[in-house]
Amino acid sequence: MKPDSVAMTAMSSLGTQGVVCIFGTGDFGRSLGLRLLQAGYEVVYGSRDPKNSALLPKGAKVMTHEQAAQTARVIFVAIHREQYDFLTSLASALEGKVLVDISNNLRRGQYPQSNAEYLSTLVPGAIVVKAFNTISAWALQSGGLDANRQVLICGDHADAKQSVVDIAHSLGLTALDRGSLRAASELEDIPLQLFPMWRLPFRIAIGLLAVFFVYVLIRDVVYKGVTEKKDISFRIMVSLANKAFPIVALVMLALCYLPGIMAAFLQLYNGTKYRRFPNWLDRWMLCRKQLGLLALAFAFLHVLYTFAIPIRYYVFHRRFTFTSTMIKENKTYEFDNVMAWRSDSYLATGMLGFALFVLLGITSLPSVSNSLNWREFSCVQSKLGHLTLLLCTAHTLLYGWDKFLQPSAYKWWTPPSFMLALVVPCVVLVLKLVLITPCMDRTITRIRQGWERPVKGGTPGKEAKSSQPLIL
Amino acid sequence: MKPDSVAMTAMSSLGTQGVVCIFGTGDFGRSLGLRLLQAGYEVVYGSRDPKNSALLPKGAKVMTHEQAAQTARVIFVAIHREQYDFLTSLASALEGKVLVDISNNLRRGQYPQSNAEYLSTLVPGAIVVKAFNTISAWALQSGGLDANRQVLICGDHADAKQSVVDIAHSLGLTALDRGSLRAASELEDIPLQLFPMWRLPFRIAIGLLAVFFVYVLIRDVVYKGVTEKKDISFRIMVSLANKAFPIVALVMLALCYLPGIMAAFLQLYNGTKYRRFPNWLDRWMLCRKQLGLLALAFAFLHVLYTFAIPIRYYVFHRRFTFTSTMIKENKTYEFDNVMAWRSDSYLATGMLGFALFVLLGITSLPSVSNSLNWREFSCVQSKLGHLTLLLCTAHTLLYGWDKFLQPSAYKWWTPPSFMLALVVPCVVLVLKLVLITPCMDRTITRIRQGWERPVKGGTPGKEAKSSQPLIL
Amino acid sequence: MKPDSVAMTAMSSLGTQGVVCIFGTGDFGRSLGLRLLQAGYEVVYGSRDPKNSALLPKGAKVMTHEQAAQTARVIFVAIHREQYDFLTSLASALEGKVLVDISNNLRRGQYPQSNAEYLSTLVPGAIVVKAFNTISAWALQSGGLDANRQVLICGDHADAKQSVVDIAHSLGLTALDRGSLRAASELEDIPLQLFPMWRLPFRIAIGLLAVFFVYVLIRDVVYKGVTEKKDISFRIMVSLANKAFPIVALVMLALCYLPGIMAAFLQLYNGTKYRRFPNWLDRWMLCRKQLGLLALAFAFLHVLYTFAIPIRYYVFHRRFTFTSTMIKENKTYEFDNVMAWRSDSYLATGMLGFALFVLLGITSLPSVSNSLNWREFSCVQSKLGHLTLLLCTAHTLLYGWDKFLQPSAYKWWTPPSFMLALVVPCVVLVLKLVLITPCMDRTITRIRQGWERPVKGGTPGKEAKSSQPLIL
Repeated sequence: MKPDSVAMTAMSSLGTQGVVCIFGTGDFGRSLGLRLLQAGYEVVYGSRDPKNSALLPKGAKVMTHEQAAQTARVIFVAIHREQYDFLTSLASALEGKVLVDISNNLRRGQYPQSNAEYLSTLVPGAIVVKAFNTISAWALQSGGLDANRQVLICGDHADAKQSVVDIAHSLGLTALDRGSLRAASELEDIPLQLFPMWRLPFRIAIGLLAVFFVYVLIRDVVYKGVTEKKDISFRIMVSLANKAFPIVALVMLALCYLPGIMAAFLQLYNGTKYRRFPNWLDRWMLCRKQLGLLALAFAFLHVLYTFAIPIRYYVFHRRFTFTSTMIKENKTYEFDNVMAWRSDSYLATGMLGFALFVLLGITSLPSVSNSLNWREFSCVQSKLGHLTLLLCTAHTLLYGWDKFLQPSAYKWWTPPSFMLALVVPCVVLVLKLVLITPCMDRTITRIRQGWERPVKGGTPGKEAKSSQPLIL
Repeated sequence: MKPDSVAMTAMSSLGTQGVVCIFGTGDFGRSLGLRLLQAGYEVVYGSRDPKNSALLPKGAKVMTHEQAAQTARVIFVAIHREQYDFLTSLASALEGKVLVDISNNLRRGQYPQSNAEYLSTLVPGAIVVKAFNTISAWALQSGGLDANRQVLICGDHADAKQSVVDIAHSLGLTALDRGSLRAASELEDIPLQLFPMWRLPFRIAIGLLAVFFVYVLIRDVVYKGVTEKKDISFRIMVSLANKAFPIVALVMLALCYLPGIMAAFLQLYNGTKYRRFPNWLDRWMLCRKQLGLLALAFAFLHVLYTFAIPIRYYVFHRRFTFTSTMIKENKTYEFDNVMAWRSDSYLATGMLGFALFVLLGITSLPSVSNSLNWREFSCVQSKLGHLTLLLCTAHTLLYGWDKFLQPSAYKWWTPPSFMLALVVPCVVLVLKLVLITPCMDRTITRIRQGWERPVKGGTPGKEAKSSQPLIL
Repeated sequence: MKPDSVAMTAMSSLGTQGVVCIFGTGDFGRSLGLRLLQAGYEVVYGSRDPKNSALLPKGAKVMTHEQAAQTARVIFVAIHREQYDFLTSLASALEGKVLVDISNNLRRGQYPQSNAEYLSTLVPGAIVVKAFNTISAWALQSGGLDANRQVLICGDHADAKQSVVDIAHSLGLTALDRGSLRAASELEDIPLQLFPMWRLPFRIAIGLLAVFFVYVLIRDVVYKGVTEKKDISFRIMVSLANKAFPIVALVMLALCYLPGIMAAFLQLYNGTKYRRFPNWLDRWMLCRKQLGLLALAFAFLHVLYTFAIPIRYYVFHRRFTFTSTMIKENKTYEFDNVMAWRSDSYLATGMLGFALFVLLGITSLPSVSNSLNWREFSCVQSKLGHLTLLLCTAHTLLYGWDKFLQPSAYKWWTPPSFMLALVVPCVVLVLKLVLITPCMDRTITRIRQGWERPVKGGTPGKEAKSSQPLIL
C-alpha cells in the first residue's frame, strides 16, 4: 500500500467515525494517525509548534495542544513520560477527556509509579486509560497482519475503556480488558519482557549441558590423557557433544512429564483436587512446554551430529584401520546376528522417538494447538508424549545394552554417562505405569471430576484450602 | 499475572460493565468469574451454601440462587446436567432471564436431547443460549493467548445471543453465531471430538503400512528363510520398515491428488460444475490435507531411516566383507559411469522431492495458509504438489531402474514392492497430463467459470441437481 | 456440520438479526446466504428467474431483484461486473441502499476503474461499500477456521461501512477498514497477487544459483574434461549441486543482514533517523524475511545432500579404491590430529549454524512471531541471526582451510567457489563488528531514540526530510 494513495483517500473521506486527538508527533503518533485516518477518523495533532508539521500524514490537522484537546473526547498521549509535566498547564482543557497513555519505559522498575497512574495524578480531572503500549508502530502500519494485534487495555472507567476498545476494533485489532488502572504497571512491563517463561528451562538446559559435558570430558579425554598419555581432545567437537546432547534431551523430556505425575500423586495423597500445589510445582508445570521444546532442540542436534558420523575424518580413518588390520592379519569378521538386531533396534527406536518428538513440537505451535480441542490436545501431549519418552528411553537402554555388566565401563569408578541419563526417565515411566493401573486410574479420574475423599472425624479441613482459584 | 493483584484491582474498579450471575462454583465457574471481574463486570455467584465460599475469586459476591438470579439479566449455568432439576423451583426468579448453558457431556449421545434444549424445557420462561462450552477454563485464565479463543454460540433469541457475544468480546474472545438452539447438540459434540478429519486418512495409512510390510516381509525374510534356510529377521527393524515407509508415503501422496483429478473428469463428463459429486468423492476431497500430511510423516521417516544406513552394523559388515573379499581375490572394481549417474539421480530426485514436500507441509500450517490468498494457496498446493509427486515418482523409478526386466526380481511370482507403489502415482500423473493439454484445460476452465454444456433435446436436467450448495 | 440440519435450524430461528438481500445465485452468493442464515439473518435473493431456485439454501426467500431490494437495507451484489448494467434500471429501488460490491477480476488492470467505483457511477443514489472480495466461498463455509478471516472494507460512508462490519463480525470474521472507496482498486488487486514480496528474493536466489552452478561446472566438470579428457559429468546431480546450494544459502543469509547494517551507517552519516532511506534500500529491507527463508531452504538442501554423501555409489567406490590401493601398496595411513580437529570443527559449526537457522525460521512463522513482543523478536532475529551468520561463515572458512595458499586450487586462474561465497558474509560481519564497538553503538542508539546531530550553520535541512512517515 502506498502511503500517498492512502493519505489521499483519507482526505476525501466523506463520512468519518469521529475526531481523535493525538498529542505528540513521534513515530508512534504518526503511525497511529495514519491508521486512524485510513479507518475514517478525523485526526487532530496537538503540537508545540503547529506550523512546523511536514512529517505528519496528509489529511490530519495540527493545532496547539489546547485547541486540539477541545476537538475530541479521546486524546492519545504519544509523548515520553519525561515531558508529561506540561500537561498540568492544560488541566482545564483536559477536564473530563479520555487520555490514552501509550507510553513505555526503557527498563523495568524505572519509576516507582506506572506512567499511566502518574499521568492520572498530574491531570486528576481527566480519565486515564492505559492501552496500545504493547502494539508496535510496525503492527499499526501493517494492519496487524504479521504481528501481535491484541490491544491490552486497563482503566477505572468502563465507558472510557469502551471508547478505546471501539477505536481498536475499527483499526482491525482485538482488545482485551485487563481491569483497573492499577494493572498499568503490569501492562508497561509486558514490552520489556524477554522470554520470561523460557528463563528457568533455559537455565536447566545450560546447567545440565555443562555438567554432562564436563563429566564425559573427564571420563573420555582426561582419562585417556592420564592413563595412556594420548591426546584425543579433537573428540570434543563432535563425539563428546553428541554424548551430552542426547542426555540433556532425554533428561529434559522426562522433566517435562515428571511434574504432571507428581501432581497426580499429590492429588491422590490429598484425596482432593481442591488443594493448591506447592509453588515450585506450579512454576514447574507452567514451563513444561518450554522444557519440551528445548529437549526437542537438543534431540535435533543429536540427530544432526549422528547423521554426520560417517562423513567424519576420524570415523573414516578408524574404519580404514579396522579393515586393513583385519585383512593384513587375515582375520575373519563373523556376522553377529544379535549385534545386528541390537544396532537396528537402537536406531529404529531412536528415529521413531524423534519423529514423534517432532510431531509433539509441531502441535505446540500456537496456530496448531489453537485448532485442537482440549481432548485432542491432551491426547497428543500426554499419550504421544509418554510414548515418545518410552521410545527414547528404550533407545538409550539399547545403546547401553550389557555395558553395565562390564567393569571396564566404570572408569575411575564412575558410571557411564548414559546410565545417569536413564535415572529420571525410568523413574517417570515407572510412576506413570503405577498411575495407569486400573485402581489408581479410577481414583485419580474421580478426584479430577470433583470427588473428595471423606476426612476422618469431621469435614475436610477448609482452612487448608487456598482461597485462590487453581490454574489448570 | 498474579491472581492477588488482579482480584484487588477488580475490587477497586470504579466503573463496571454490569452484573453477571454465575450458578455453580466449580473450576469453570471460578475461572469465568475471575475473568469477568478482570474485565470490569460485577460477578454474583448463586450457591446452595452462600456462607461457605472460600475458593471464589475476591471481589465476587455470593448469594442464594434465588437472590443471585435477581441481580443480573445474564446467568451462566456452570453446573452439571444431572443437577439441572433444582432450577425448576426457581422458575419465577428465572422468568425472562438469559440462561447461558456452558455444559459438556462425558461422551457423545449420552442423552437423547442436548443439555441446552433440556434446560429450555425445564425452565420454559427463560431464554436459553448455548455458549462457551468449547472454551476451556485454561483458555479463560490465560486470556486465550495460547488456546482456541472462538466462542461458538447458538440460541433462538437474537438479543440474548448478542448479550453473550458482548460478554465474549469483552473477555478478549471472538464469537461465532451458529444458529438456533437446535444446533446445541452439534456444539456439545465439538469438545468430545477426537480428530474426526484424521480418522479415514489414518486408517488408510495403517492399512497400507500393514499390507506392504507383510508383503516385503514375505518376499524378503520368509523367502530367504524358506529357500536358503537363512535367518535375516533382523532386517525387520530398519531395512523392511524403510521399504514400507516410502511406499506408503508415495501412495498416499498420490491418493491426495487423485480425487481432484477425478472431480475434474466428472465435471468434464457432466459438462457442468453444478452437479454434486458422489458422497465418497466429497469425503475424500475433504481429507486431502490430512492424507498429504500423513504421507509427509512417512516420507520423513524414510529420510531418517535412509540417512541412518551408513551407521548400521549390518551395512558396515557388508561393506567390510565386500572390500576384504575383493582384495583377497585380487579383483578390480571398475567404476561404472551409468551406475554413478543412476545413484546420484536417484538421491537427487528424492531429496528435492522431500524438500518440496516439506514446503507443502509448512504451507499447510494454519497460520501460514491464512496469510496466503486463494490464488497463492492453490498455486502452491496444486502446482508444487504435482511437481513433488513427479519427483517422488521419478525417485522410485530410478530406484527400480531395470529390475523389472530381471526374472530374479519376481520371487514367488510376485512383483517387487516398488512396482506396486508406482501404480497409483503413475495413473495420477498420466491423468493430470491429459487434463493440462490445451483443449482439456480450456474446457475445464470454462466449466469452472460457470459455463454449462448445452444438453441435447431440452433444458439441462434440473431434477438431477442437488438443492444444496457445493462445498468448494 | 451437515447442511441439512443447519438449513432446518435456520428456518426455525425465532429471533433474527435482520434481513439481508443478495443479488446473484452463484457459488459465493449461495455460500454467503447459507452463512447468513446460520448466523440468524433472514436472507432474500434477488433473481432474474425467482421460480427456478432449486440450488439455494433452505430458508432463504427468492424474489425479483426489485422486490428483493425493498426488503433490506444492505444488498450484496454477487454478480460479475459484466452484468452490472441491468442495475441502472433498478435505480429507484436501490436509492439509499447499501450495495456491497464483492466482485473480483480475472487479472490486474482489466478495467481502468475499480468495479466498486464503476458500480457507484452506475447507481449514484446507492451507497457502495467494497468488502468480502478477499474472502473465499470456502472460508465462508468453514467459518474461517482454516482460512484468512479478515474482511477488508472500504467506502465513503461510515454508517454503511459499519453495517457491513457488523455483518462480518456476526459471521465470525474480523473486519479492517481500509478507507474510502478509492481504495477499492487496491482491494480488488489483493486476490490477484501471487507472492509479491517473494518475487525479488526468488529472482536473486535463482540468479545466484545459476551463476554459481555454471561456475563450479566449468571449474570442475569442464576443466577435468579439457585437461584430462575424463568425463565426470555424473557429478552434476549431487556433488556440484551440493557446492552451489551452500554458497547461495550463505550469500543470501548475508544479504539478509546487509541492508540493516547499511541503514545504520546511513543514519550515522546523516546524523538523524528522520531522513528517508533510498527506495532501493527500503525495498531491500522489506524483503529480508523472504531472503532469509529462501536461504534456509538452500541450507536445508545442503544438509540433505551432505548426509546423503556416504550412501552414494561414487563415494563408496572411491573409498573402496583408496582402501584397496593402500593395502595392496602396503602403505600406512597415519592419523592426522589437525585434520581430525578441522573435520570435526567444520561439521560442528555447520550443524550448530543450521540448528540456529532452523530456529530463526520457526520464529518467522506468523503464529510464533505474533506471540513475541518487539524486544523478543528483535533479539532473536538480530542477535541469533548474526550468530548464525558467524557460525556459517566459520563453517565455510574451515572448509577452505589453507586451500587459498595452494596454487592448484586456482584452476584456470579462477578462485575456488567457496572464496567467492565468503566475500559478502565477511563484509557484513566486519561492518557489524564496527557497529557494535561502544562508541558507534552509543551514537546509533541515541539517533534511534530521536537525537539529531546539530547541523553547522543553521537548523537541520527541513527540505530534505520526507513528508511521509517512515515505515519501521
